[in-house]
Amino acid sequence: MKKNILVIPGDGIGPEVTTWGKAALEKIAEIFGHEFLFDEALMGHAAIEVTGEPLPDETLEKARKSDAILFGAIGHAKYDNDPSLKVRPEQGLLKIRKELGLFANLRPILLFDELLQASSIKPEILRGTDILFFRELTGDVYFGEKTRSEDRNTASDLMIYHRYEVERIAHKAYQAAQQRSKRLCSVDKANVLESSRLWRETVQEIAKQYPDVETEHMFIDNAAMQLIKNPKKFDVVLTANLFGDILTDEASQIAGSMGMLASASVGESTGFFEPIHGSAHDITGKDLANPLASILSAALMLEIGFGLKEEAKLLVDTVDAVLKEGFRTHDIADQTTNRFKVLGTAEMGKLVLK
Amino acid sequence: MKKNILVIPGDGIGPEVTTWGKAALEKIAEIFGHEFLFDEALMGHAAIEVTGEPLPDETLEKARKSDAILFGAIGHAKYDNDPSLKVRPEQGLLKIRKELGLFANLRPILLFDELLQASSIKPEILRGTDILFFRELTGDVYFGEKTRSEDRNTASDLMIYHRYEVERIAHKAYQAAQQRSKRLCSVDKANVLESSRLWRETVQEIAKQYPDVETEHMFIDNAAMQLIKNPKKFDVVLTANLFGDILTDEASQIAGSMGMLASASVGESTGFFEPIHGSAHDITGKDLANPLASILSAALMLEIGFGLKEEAKLLVDTVDAVLKEGFRTHDIADQTTNRFKVLGTAEMGKLVLK
Ligand SMILES: CC(C)[C@H](C(=O)O)[C@@H](O)C(=O)O
Ligand SMILES: CC(C)[C@H](C(=O)O)[C@@H](O)C(=O)O
Repeated sequence: MKKNILVIPGDGIGPEVTTWGKAALEKIAEIFGHEFLFDEALMGHAAIEVTGEPLPDETLEKARKSDAILFGAIGHAKYDNDPSLKVRPEQGLLKIRKELGLFANLRPILLFDELLQASSIKPEILRGTDILFFRELTGDVYFGEKTRSEDRNTASDLMIYHRYEVERIAHKAYQAAQQRSKRLCSVDKANVLESSRLWRETVQEIAKQYPDVETEHMFIDNAAMQLIKNPKKFDVVLTANLFGDILTDEASQIAGSMGMLASASVGESTGFFEPIHGSAHDITGKDLANPLASILSAALMLEIGFGLKEEAKLLVDTVDAVLKEGFRTHDIADQTTNRFKVLGTAEMGKLVLK
Repeated sequence: MKKNILVIPGDGIGPEVTTWGKAALEKIAEIFGHEFLFDEALMGHAAIEVTGEPLPDETLEKARKSDAILFGAIGHAKYDNDPSLKVRPEQGLLKIRKELGLFANLRPILLFDELLQASSIKPEILRGTDILFFRELTGDVYFGEKTRSEDRNTASDLMIYHRYEVERIAHKAYQAAQQRSKRLCSVDKANVLESSRLWRETVQEIAKQYPDVETEHMFIDNAAMQLIKNPKKFDVVLTANLFGDILTDEASQIAGSMGMLASASVGESTGFFEPIHGSAHDITGKDLANPLASILSAALMLEIGFGLKEEAKLLVDTVDAVLKEGFRTHDIADQTTNRFKVLGTAEMGKLVLK
């Protein structure tokens, strides 16, 4: 198989971890005899520094031409500390999601048995958890109109949904549920928000087309609580952009660490694959980041982007094997014991490749 | 001390639990020689059934005249299942918050040692946690304009903040932080939302007036994760209406159960005290609800509403003692052992009074 892959390392720990996601893809190409052609492009703070734009036209052009994109992370402390800056790294990520029509963000909460102890949640609560989030990615308060009054004393963001936006992601989520345990939980705040009432109505309609799937509707506040109280009760979770952002970060604690979770954004054409963690400026360049989320993002690219199941499985199994042998990065090491061999980013990356 | 207290039992388990919050206040009055005069009023589904309105004028009038309000819960499955209904129970709660100017919702995450085991989170992660949430309560996407297009295919809610709304709650939170461990974490989504950028800017300004308090700014997605990963790192948490709704429900797992958490809403005059749990239609009328959150709401009324510290402490200590003796309601019983004496709502209520 021949594929064009665009690598966008982005900001913070993005470059460090993406190196290993890319290396994993190269290794897979070598083993299975595929031809993966790589190109690279700038986005975020890294792009602003060079071009003044968080998403340069050149990056967008390259993205459109590629078959899949491996992305690192975005964001920089400079902007976080100064809310008044107009040009911001995150605009690059939001724009590419919108431009490529990446309306469905899949975030599987993959639980490695070996990491049950790394979580702050009790192992007996976690064991057996297997959740697949469908987060809507190109609508909601992320993309609605933003205003700031002239005196700068009032600011707003429009939380808005169109029926077709809910429908198309709902179909994807229901189809996935049919392939899994046939349970879907849709999360909203329909007791307060009109956009959530549209969301709930629409999901209720779509549900009728999938009578074999059991649907539950839950309020976001309750879901944020249930997710820790009893994560096993969830299977496919379907939710809006903002609620999905919050719930999936929270759910990362189920997998032991943000450093373990990958996501796939799909929609109209090119797929976009990235860790769910952020740019983590505090540990950037210190060889402390966990490269496994990027390697698992590569696995999602193989599976969801290219339909290469066997190749994806080899990557996931290798990560599992490395964990079984007791190797850990800092984020997933148990601080209280010395049972583990704690590795830096690069050592962990190399080990998986071996 | 003479006080007029309005009891609004509301919907679902509201009446069952509020009975015990009220009884606790009566007992305290008896012991300490106060005069508490009680009145009662309708709100939510209960009010719609009788008057057609979720917040009848009569309730609002009584509320304005009272010194404090003890509230139960709101909501009903009928409305949750039918997003198209125009008159909804929750409108009553939102309206009374707005009308009484209850802009600051305080949600202390009170950890009873005895309940460390009841949580899904590991006891060693929880031990020592003590968080006080300040949730903004009369602004945000809760109160911004709502629209639905004529073809019903587009719906929106305006997420909006004015600088003065952020300032007044920030002052309250900083003042509380000065009395506590002098750490404040403000939660927003300033990397995406303009209203959050206003929020962050404003908090940065107010922070200068409290140089003895250490301020941290955190994105909501990260906060939802850190709250479970390392709850001890939080002390005072200041956040917007929607984010506060989500984070405090999530944080209820730190306290072992939603059934344990009380909240105080304060602002211009009359204080409003309520459990953070919802109406829980699934267990309504089954004598399964936990009355302790209502009793602890009564304690907050005594402390924050009336400045009666000793009285409040007696209530909290009594709850603690009852837990120490091994008594539990269903939500906080450890399902796997028979170590506890599991009580119904009424038995637990009576026991605390004794
Ligand atoms: C960086 C930020 C804009 C982004 C988001 O909120 O979508 C991130 O948190 C994510 O989840 O991908
Ligand atoms: C019932 C609902 C409107 C309410 C809210 O979202 O504010 C509740 O969840 C709460 O937290 O008090």
